[in-house]
Amino acid sequence: MNNLEWSKAEKQVARRAYDLAYEKECRAIRAKVEQMLEADDNIRQIWRIHDYLSKERRETDRKYDYRYSVLIFVFAKLINEGWITEADLSGLGADKTQRIKALVGFEHEDEVNS
Amino acid sequence: MNNLEWSKAEKQVARRAYDLAYEKECRAIRAKVEQMLEADDNIRQIWRIHDYLSKERRETDRKYDYRYSVLIFVFAKLINEGWITEADLSGLGADKTQRIKALVGFEHEDEVNS
Repeated sequence: MNNLEWSKAEKQVARRAYDLAYEKECRAIRAKVEQMLEADDNIRQIWRIHDYLSKERRETDRKYDYRYSVLIFVFAKLINEGWITEADLSGLGADKTQRIKALVGFEHEDEVNS
Repeated sequence: MNNLEWSKAEKQVARRAYDLAYEKECRAIRAKVEQMLEADDNIRQIWRIHDYLSKERRETDRKYDYRYSVLIFVFAKLINEGWITEADLSGLGADKTQRIKALVGFEHEDEVNS
């Protein structure tokens, strides 16, 4: 997707959607940690929380990649996982939204078949 | 300290003191995590908590070593750090308590001079 040109306005839309997804995901991780603390008073629970945060950190570090060359794939994944909707990307050109939609369908089909 | 013999009763005292220290330290770590969650609503706070837990896990994994050959050093460190007191080791023979006391004083002096 290196051939796509991003206008200044599109970059703003992309940044906002990306930041929104990251914030929502971090808040969900935080809520899960709070829930784990409430759910179990066992002293080893802090190490289960550490394992959980290590996993989430690896996954979010891999997922959130703001290079324009991969952003189409990133947005498709974020939509599939429910962190953003297509409406959050309103303002992107059809060259981008069509590619994202195609990937969303493809990834979704892949998940259904797996 | 490989030359020390541990009686069955001493092993019970040692195990209880060791478990007590570990539980107190884990509870302190948990309290710190809860305090960090309360103190800062920033979305990146979960990664600061992850960093903190990673550090504590490394340190506790290194510190809590229940081999009888190193237990004297472990108890001296746990006393110096305040997780147990000499009273928690009541029941150990003088061959062990004297070595622990000597190490407690030595480590403490070392900290004062450093």
